[in-house]
Amino acid sequence: MVSSNHENAAGSLAFPKRLWGKIVGFALRLKNLGKEDPRRIIHCFKVGLALTFVSLFYYFKPLYDGFGLDAMWAILTVVVVFEFSVGATLGKGLNRMLATLTAGALGIGAHRLATLSGETGEPILIALFVFIIAGIVTFLRFVPQLKARYDYGLMVFILTFCLISVSGYRDEEVIRMGFERLSTIVLGSCAAVFVCTFICPVWIGVDLHNHIATNIEKLGNFLEGFEDGYFKISEEGQPINKSSSLQGYKSVLTSSSKEEIMANLAKWEPCHGKFRFRHPWNEYLKVGSITRQCAFKIESLNHYLTSEIQSPPEVRSIIQGECTVISSECGKALKELASGVRKMTKSSAAEPHITNSKAAAENLKAVIRSSLSKHCDYLEILQAGAVASLLFEVVKCTEEIAGAVHKLASLAHFKNAKPRVTPETQELPSQGAVNPVSGIDGAHHVITINPSQSLRESENSSPPVLAPRMEV
Amino acid sequence: MVSSNHENAAGSLAFPKRLWGKIVGFALRLKNLGKEDPRRIIHCFKVGLALTFVSLFYYFKPLYDGFGLDAMWAILTVVVVFEFSVGATLGKGLNRMLATLTAGALGIGAHRLATLSGETGEPILIALFVFIIAGIVTFLRFVPQLKARYDYGLMVFILTFCLISVSGYRDEEVIRMGFERLSTIVLGSCAAVFVCTFICPVWIGVDLHNHIATNIEKLGNFLEGFEDGYFKISEEGQPINKSSSLQGYKSVLTSSSKEEIMANLAKWEPCHGKFRFRHPWNEYLKVGSITRQCAFKIESLNHYLTSEIQSPPEVRSIIQGECTVISSECGKALKELASGVRKMTKSSAAEPHITNSKAAAENLKAVIRSSLSKHCDYLEILQAGAVASLLFEVVKCTEEIAGAVHKLASLAHFKNAKPRVTPETQELPSQGAVNPVSGIDGAHHVITINPSQSLRESENSSPPVLAPRMEV
Repeated sequence: MVSSNHENAAGSLAFPKRLWGKIVGFALRLKNLGKEDPRRIIHCFKVGLALTFVSLFYYFKPLYDGFGLDAMWAILTVVVVFEFSVGATLGKGLNRMLATLTAGALGIGAHRLATLSGETGEPILIALFVFIIAGIVTFLRFVPQLKARYDYGLMVFILTFCLISVSGYRDEEVIRMGFERLSTIVLGSCAAVFVCTFICPVWIGVDLHNHIATNIEKLGNFLEGFEDGYFKISEEGQPINKSSSLQGYKSVLTSSSKEEIMANLAKWEPCHGKFRFRHPWNEYLKVGSITRQCAFKIESLNHYLTSEIQSPPEVRSIIQGECTVISSECGKALKELASGVRKMTKSSAAEPHITNSKAAAENLKAVIRSSLSKHCDYLEILQAGAVASLLFEVVKCTEEIAGAVHKLASLAHFKNAKPRVTPETQELPSQGAVNPVSGIDGAHHVITINPSQSLRESENSSPPVLAPRMEV
Repeated sequence: MVSSNHENAAGSLAFPKRLWGKIVGFALRLKNLGKEDPRRIIHCFKVGLALTFVSLFYYFKPLYDGFGLDAMWAILTVVVVFEFSVGATLGKGLNRMLATLTAGALGIGAHRLATLSGETGEPILIALFVFIIAGIVTFLRFVPQLKARYDYGLMVFILTFCLISVSGYRDEEVIRMGFERLSTIVLGSCAAVFVCTFICPVWIGVDLHNHIATNIEKLGNFLEGFEDGYFKISEEGQPINKSSSLQGYKSVLTSSSKEEIMANLAKWEPCHGKFRFRHPWNEYLKVGSITRQCAFKIESLNHYLTSEIQSPPEVRSIIQGECTVISSECGKALKELASGVRKMTKSSAAEPHITNSKAAAENLKAVIRSSLSKHCDYLEILQAGAVASLLFEVVKCTEEIAGAVHKLASLAHFKNAKPRVTPETQELPSQGAVNPVSGIDGAHHVITINPSQSLRESENSSPPVLAPRMEV
């Protein structure tokens, strides 16, 4: 009896404790979200500001008399249109305004046409119009090209057309109503776009730019760490460094849809910083796609780090020298390319590394011909051979990435790199620190992520980013 | 002079011609969209129907008097909530209703609290509330778990809270207004959900189910065709079948985000057909992820079909026999697994194929030890060795996929497969045809895609699907 009482008391205490633990856990997760990308916190302030601003508009009596209940459309528009990045907000705002204008005009026309058909014909005709227009526009939303950029506009088109033509049943002042709706939506959209663009803007184009550079860098990190991972053998005959620090490239494997979405949004953005209006965003997709091809090879390479069947150490030691040169030179080349993209400079710093890696590949072939063939058990050297074969592929991929980056650099009018003064500057800025980046526009900072952060990075989180700043 | 006139005339004719060409091209694309997935056309009719239905509600005078201008919220709700699949529509509808209810209550509370603070304090307090609530809820939208399922609800929460509390500035009948808004939104959501669910419903869960099965099948197709692709050499020493018919697996490489979205939406769906309410959707994601791992290996294998550096035919012919057995047995096993998933049966038909492929892998190792090692030029046999090594990996992957599929089958309570009667039934239904599928619920048909369609399939297009049907 006593023990059961005890248990009950413990049980009743356990529940609040568990609840408290969950609340603390959730709060910590929120804190991490803010820490990962401080622009998120600023975004929340911006949304609050824009909404309070529009609410004040609504509060003032003259405006209220002028717009009436329609003023709530302004609030609705701000909530719906305000997105994290300038590109998304501008895209939605423009879509909404344009769709309201055209659908409003069409709705008024449809209403006029229906009125001419007499009292009984009117509702039938309007119902028919609604059915047809809603059906056609809904089908247009399936066209991939329209879906990518105008999906929201098409939805607003259906909405406005229905509201205008159906409200016409009751209200003869259709034109006045259409005008009011349009003007409040323009007001709401402009408020959202204004706050989003002029207060600490988040440019999705800059995000895409850095995302592509970071992806190339991640592959470079893997290749530079590959030697330790594959050749440094522990006493148990297993590679020492199976650690997760090499696994940053994994996010590259599945980032294609994210890149496409970003490029589509970036196309809405006006010129900003060094990015012109018709910046070649599609080239980023091409670079991203080739980078992903390389990531697939690296995924195969990575497999040999963790594989149970390993070539014996004496076999691996034969190819170690040249393999190390290939992977580290390819890694350096990729990091130079990434740094060039990040700084927006045309740089040929990667070329010597590529040349070195190609030379090492030739040497490796010679080593394989001369030394490896002497091993009698082919099965034992199979895995080492596969690693070598994959490294040849990686060299080819690195060259292709370099080609794509050079094409991007020339199409996007990247500047020529300044000659380097000290050998120290050859090093990339160490990750995790806030470093001035002279390339982009000389005044702001880039927060690069450190490797442990890049591991936590899921597909949902945003790429390393420019710190928020005023930009007019 | 004459020639310039000619040119002008030709030029002025060329423009309408080009325009006409573009219009025809666009119309053809629309036709293909409808052909690819006829459910799209039905969806458009459903949207038109739901909107006309709600408009009629609005048209009737008693309702109009009752709901007033708020009735337009019903139309707005239908347009916004009505999505292609039942899961998406239900998710949005429930999100919208729940968010309106809670935000409305909170908004009314905030308005009461503000009224108590006197005439000057009221607007300040309400502005403060709007700022704080909008900020906090906007931040919550960044939490990945909330974003995946409740993003729309959080947005509607902000919207409703702002409208209710701000409209309180002017209107003392806040509670009546809140109730009206809620009831029209419930009406609109229910109309959308009703039409979406009871007229030719599109179950995203079924789509995900078939998508996973199709992905496994695509890998099987590649493996079954691999022999022709790699070993059948043309006179120029190049593989004959580099054709695109093997490239169907490419879409598997990048389908992870699509699968996640589908699983999140499927969780909203009630039980339908053989799918229970708490169907283990997350297991599908696990199967999908292992399938993708296998696809990465196949991507590497595919590389050797198109590689310029090829092992000479005499080297390839040494390993041809066992490699063919491995790839075709793995292919058959994967196709059996896919067919089991598609029919929702627990089947062990894949196991003999896996056993065969493992035996062939052991044989291949012996062949490599005995015959391949005799070749003196290791570089020449490097590529053949890499192919063999990858095939070993594929065998392992196939076993893993089988394990994951068996786990899914037991968690999802798939039925035991009936013993097969004739050898003909062992064959999978030929692709491109409409075949009865007895497994799922015995009454409807599956449209499987043919290989050329699967190539056209981009990430945007939906997976092969159940034909639309009535299901209550």
